[in-house]
Amino acid sequence: MSETARVRARALGLAPGIFPPGAHNAITDVAGVRVGQVTLIEGDATRTGVTAIIPHPGNPFQDRVPAGLAVINGFGKLAGATQVAELGEIETPIVLTNTLAVGRAVEALVDWTLARPGNEQVTSVNAFVGETNDGRLNDIRARGVTREHVLAALEGAADGPVAEGCVGAGTGTMAFGWKGGIGTSSRLLPEALGGWRIGALVQANYGGVLTMDGIPVGHELGRWYLKEHTDRGDADGSVMVIIATDAPLSDRNLTRLATRAMAGLARTGAAFSDGSGDYALAFSTHPGVRRTAERRAHQAIIADWPNDRMSPLFQAAAEAVEEAVLNALTMATTVIGRDGRTGRRAKGEAIDLDALRAVLVRHGRGA
Amino acid sequence: MSETARVRARALGLAPGIFPPGAHNAITDVAGVRVGQVTLIEGDATRTGVTAIIPHPGNPFQDRVPAGLAVINGFGKLAGATQVAELGEIETPIVLTNTLAVGRAVEALVDWTLARPGNEQVTSVNAFVGETNDGRLNDIRARGVTREHVLAALEGAADGPVAEGCVGAGTGTMAFGWKGGIGTSSRLLPEALGGWRIGALVQANYGGVLTMDGIPVGHELGRWYLKEHTDRGDADGSVMVIIATDAPLSDRNLTRLATRAMAGLARTGAAFSDGSGDYALAFSTHPGVRRTAERRAHQAIIADWPNDRMSPLFQAAAEAVEEAVLNALTMATTVIGRDGRTGRRAKGEAIDLDALRAVLVRHGRGA
Amino acid sequence: MSETARVRARALGLAPGIFPPGAHNAITDVAGVRVGQVTLIEGDATRTGVTAIIPHPGNPFQDRVPAGLAVINGFGKLAGATQVAELGEIETPIVLTNTLAVGRAVEALVDWTLARPGNEQVTSVNAFVGETNDGRLNDIRARGVTREHVLAALEGAADGPVAEGCVGAGTGTMAFGWKGGIGTSSRLLPEALGGWRIGALVQANYGGVLTMDGIPVGHELGRWYLKEHTDRGDADGSVMVIIATDAPLSDRNLTRLATRAMAGLARTGAAFSDGSGDYALAFSTHPGVRRTAERRAHQAIIADWPNDRMSPLFQAAAEAVEEAVLNALTMATTVIGRDGRTGRRAKGEAIDLDALRAVLVRHGRGA
Amino acid sequence: MSETARVRARALGLAPGIFPPGAHNAITDVAGVRVGQVTLIEGDATRTGVTAIIPHPGNPFQDRVPAGLAVINGFGKLAGATQVAELGEIETPIVLTNTLAVGRAVEALVDWTLARPGNEQVTSVNAFVGETNDGRLNDIRARGVTREHVLAALEGAADGPVAEGCVGAGTGTMAFGWKGGIGTSSRLLPEALGGWRIGALVQANYGGVLTMDGIPVGHELGRWYLKEHTDRGDADGSVMVIIATDAPLSDRNLTRLATRAMAGLARTGAAFSDGSGDYALAFSTHPGVRRTAERRAHQAIIADWPNDRMSPLFQAAAEAVEEAVLNALTMATTVIGRDGRTGRRAKGEAIDLDALRAVLVRHGRGA
Repeated sequence: MSETARVRARALGLAPGIFPPGAHNAITDVAGVRVGQVTLIEGDATRTGVTAIIPHPGNPFQDRVPAGLAVINGFGKLAGATQVAELGEIETPIVLTNTLAVGRAVEALVDWTLARPGNEQVTSVNAFVGETNDGRLNDIRARGVTREHVLAALEGAADGPVAEGCVGAGTGTMAFGWKGGIGTSSRLLPEALGGWRIGALVQANYGGVLTMDGIPVGHELGRWYLKEHTDRGDADGSVMVIIATDAPLSDRNLTRLATRAMAGLARTGAAFSDGSGDYALAFSTHPGVRRTAERRAHQAIIADWPNDRMSPLFQAAAEAVEEAVLNALTMATTVIGRDGRTGRRAKGEAIDLDALRAVLVRHGRGA
Repeated sequence: MSETARVRARALGLAPGIFPPGAHNAITDVAGVRVGQVTLIEGDATRTGVTAIIPHPGNPFQDRVPAGLAVINGFGKLAGATQVAELGEIETPIVLTNTLAVGRAVEALVDWTLARPGNEQVTSVNAFVGETNDGRLNDIRARGVTREHVLAALEGAADGPVAEGCVGAGTGTMAFGWKGGIGTSSRLLPEALGGWRIGALVQANYGGVLTMDGIPVGHELGRWYLKEHTDRGDADGSVMVIIATDAPLSDRNLTRLATRAMAGLARTGAAFSDGSGDYALAFSTHPGVRRTAERRAHQAIIADWPNDRMSPLFQAAAEAVEEAVLNALTMATTVIGRDGRTGRRAKGEAIDLDALRAVLVRHGRGA
Repeated sequence: MSETARVRARALGLAPGIFPPGAHNAITDVAGVRVGQVTLIEGDATRTGVTAIIPHPGNPFQDRVPAGLAVINGFGKLAGATQVAELGEIETPIVLTNTLAVGRAVEALVDWTLARPGNEQVTSVNAFVGETNDGRLNDIRARGVTREHVLAALEGAADGPVAEGCVGAGTGTMAFGWKGGIGTSSRLLPEALGGWRIGALVQANYGGVLTMDGIPVGHELGRWYLKEHTDRGDADGSVMVIIATDAPLSDRNLTRLATRAMAGLARTGAAFSDGSGDYALAFSTHPGVRRTAERRAHQAIIADWPNDRMSPLFQAAAEAVEEAVLNALTMATTVIGRDGRTGRRAKGEAIDLDALRAVLVRHGRGA
Repeated sequence: MSETARVRARALGLAPGIFPPGAHNAITDVAGVRVGQVTLIEGDATRTGVTAIIPHPGNPFQDRVPAGLAVINGFGKLAGATQVAELGEIETPIVLTNTLAVGRAVEALVDWTLARPGNEQVTSVNAFVGETNDGRLNDIRARGVTREHVLAALEGAADGPVAEGCVGAGTGTMAFGWKGGIGTSSRLLPEALGGWRIGALVQANYGGVLTMDGIPVGHELGRWYLKEHTDRGDADGSVMVIIATDAPLSDRNLTRLATRAMAGLARTGAAFSDGSGDYALAFSTHPGVRRTAERRAHQAIIADWPNDRMSPLFQAAAEAVEEAVLNALTMATTVIGRDGRTGRRAKGEAIDLDALRAVLVRHGRGA
């Protein structure tokens, strides 16, 4: 199998759910959302990086977006959690990186924010940083990610297609025993259901019993969590999910939307193991809910999409998360690195697409 | 298809997950747990009932079991939630019934508790009652369930096999557009992982895009949530999940265990829609964590299963919940009732097992 | 001291905080809010009742008010909690009663709601019921409160001044070792801070070391929790706090407002003991945030008071709660009843206002 | 008034509550707890620092202490929150610093932990860092705190008396319009209530209407939040509370204990304003609940203090927190610095102890 032949899940016939994707089938289908990534592959040991998501082209500190956070399993070092829950908003871009780089990612986001025009008098910044532990392929104790890498990811953020697999914060991650990474997907609701866009981006670094659009790929390929029925089965490692939408949701309904990430993850066979930090953050880019300086200072009039019409968005979020994980797996390539704990050479093998295709064909999928 | 031919999911080749079930493949595989059910089918309109789960043969108010509650989507009338979270325990049996019967179920549980020998001076009772809305087949506004029905369910509780499908609190429920009901399942961990038992019981009354052990049954049989892409798709209706284990878990780890119910539900294709009250309660029967009068009055020594070894239990809980839902569907029979809202005759059609078998065979399952 | 001479705290010189009260110094200063109470004093043992708060004159199920719940210590049997948190609204009036009457209060609220014109097709009702345990003066196991009492409280609801002390759900409650009961108070913000009204009503049945507007009344009068340094000190018993405002708050900011109830309680010397169910619910009556049928079905435009301007409301809520508790104590009269646990005659002695006045004078307060 | 004459609150006759303090009246009265502080006063603009609390003399990553976190108002940048809640433990010392230094404090705590003997294979560290915003006296945008300062605070940690006022993380903080800072206090329960020690340490940087042991000092001295009835009243600024105990508490009961911090804060007149990050973390040093490597790997036997006996600990925690705040105020000295937002010279005036003594005498306190 040539590594250059990696394709997205949909090209393999894997298209979970009932709603169609957007133009790029990416979180950037939600207009204004940009993604920037820095990939660090240095020497034989550094396999890590940074992925940044910027909610809109303006000043995210001054024009805040409402946001909601779901903590599915809180074994993680997420920065910014309590203020998001209290105020229902984020005030910085979102940065994803490795577990031991959260401190300098916070530092960099603070620097970046203080330096924005218009923020000259800002003295308080709630940096939002997520992470997963890429220490199975990355010499994580060496702390390869610097403040400058984070700033570079922010500066490089762009709309359009998003690189997937072994890039950015997914450079060194594993999923279900194979190489994981960054994945993204989106859904477009029909007009009758609001016509909204819902996009997801995942940093997939977790395990379980891999199921792809219902097909028991893990079992078919002989690799799954607890196969040997010992505690040494390795399902830990975490997943960060970011969900964007252009629907005018309250922070409460964004929290509910974020919670549905777990459905998408569960359908991939996630084990939600003890040591997995499984988090989802959802935000809305709708101008009618944007928290501008004006709206933060006076009684305001804001848009609101009601509880009663949330269900299709919930379905769409679960679908986009599920497909984003599939993309992370099918787009990732094999990576040779070093185990950050033992210092031994380690291999993160990409899932073999030919073998996968054969499984799908046996299950009546693909061609 | 004869309705008498209903079988459990495992007999159809549906055996989700990696762990084996216990002897009864039921929540009662956790020693000491008993289930009692009262089924109300009266006239052409009453299709409802009560299901009670009693954690152990002693006095549940005096010898309390630690418990944890997960609120996946809180559109529900669950009674007892805040005290379970504060104290980490339940002090009554668990009663499941319909949405509008919660008041009298609370009343009955209070009566039952006050009347137990040893409770003569009890003046405070936290009745734990869950519900789903069976109003699509049951004239729910007629309030068929009485205090006496609840007491009868409690008095009739027994160990051994548990009746499934259109019984007890599942008499009038729907799931995925078919007749739902009560389902149960269990998992037995290998000795190397602790050897514990995990049992689940569900009152399945929710919707989505039905997937059975990964097979897209909903799509294959042409029935799924939002098929018509309008908000009239009907995925609401709730699910109550009860999980029992004999592992010596803290209330915090029981809460985490309960949270994994969502994984089992998600794998069935749950939509987790706005109007669905999706709850899971987990409790432990291990004598080493029982909150006896002695342990409640003095510094105590208790057993504890550590965080680091929770993952296999999480996997087992998800599996048992998934299979419990499948059992609810395959064991339920067609019910003709009356819509509680419109007063019109309504039919809850059981899933056609012959059609289902054909789907499974097409997907390489069953015989 | 004549019992007829009971006065409100403000008449004693106790006026905690910095904002002035409204016209009635009652929760009913928030326009549209009505309170109804049924007081049950029967034979020598029944000392209990019902207090109902109706948020506005319309149909509370169809025109819902946003609401937020704070669980300060969740040792209580509150009904309706999880749906309030999930949807951010209440759909029934609020009913307060005793611990063992929650079941029938739920039943009554469901009946009341199903019977409202316009609710003919309603099949799901989230009854909101709070309680405290009046079993130290009331034969609570006798279950004196009936469905009819609850309906009578709802039907009798009125605006204007609110009866305080030994009325309604406060008939048999105790506070700080003296007779407690129902109390209410309000605050009016200056126009520069929004001009909003914040009203509080409490069912005071808890203990601690009584402080009245900072003055150590408990110590001065020789009665306080843990005075004897044994666990037999009796600070348990709970408090329900209801907060109403006409500010256009989101459910998230209402939850935050409810949380500030704890500040008011703390300033009275609350012990927040293990067995105390300390809850606060806050709701907004502002038309711009009302969840009408129209707003629940379509994208809506709603009013919003921003985070940045919440602080004065927080201060006002704490003040109103503190003064409401003081009113409960100074308005309550001595009650002779029966201990619901032991069956023994019990006396709930009103705080002696002459002695209290002397203490206040010694501390430079009152006349 | 000579600044050298600063005294602790108890020397002024302010001794809130009913329990006696421990030997040092400090968090270090809980055996094994150490505190280290680095005070940064440089040039005319840097007025900040670091305070570290180390739970026991061993390796805090390998021998973890159970812990619980209470988020009273989550406007803050606290690091480590979600993992503490999920696992019920801390695995690093606690570091307090200023708002914009959280990133490098996380970085330093990770470094410190990776470097401990026995942690050679550690690749995941949940650094616990709290902060308040000292930007009213400190040029916070200049980022004076470095990784080395944090390490120095950790290395300097010692038992015995704890420096208070303008030291460590309290160097630049304000409280109630006066100079705030670090304060500490403790309580010793009588043997009949368990004989436990409860210690608190606060980083006081918040506002409101100052009350000292019930006495309205803010009003008497003419300085309080919202005095001018405009939104420019400045009550924001946050408070971090750390509570230690030697009672063998579960993480759930430690969370409840932490929640009682709000009672102590409320009694000082805290406004709990929108922009205040008000957090409390409680941990237990009892060997019977320590999470050793052995206990984390196998079924364990642990000690447990029951719910029913928690109330006196709750009372003690509230008292210690209240007195710790009083100590922060009475021990702080006047600081001249620079406003981090406007760059203007700013003065944080210590509360005048002579004026305070006069107020106390007028209220019958002190001598």
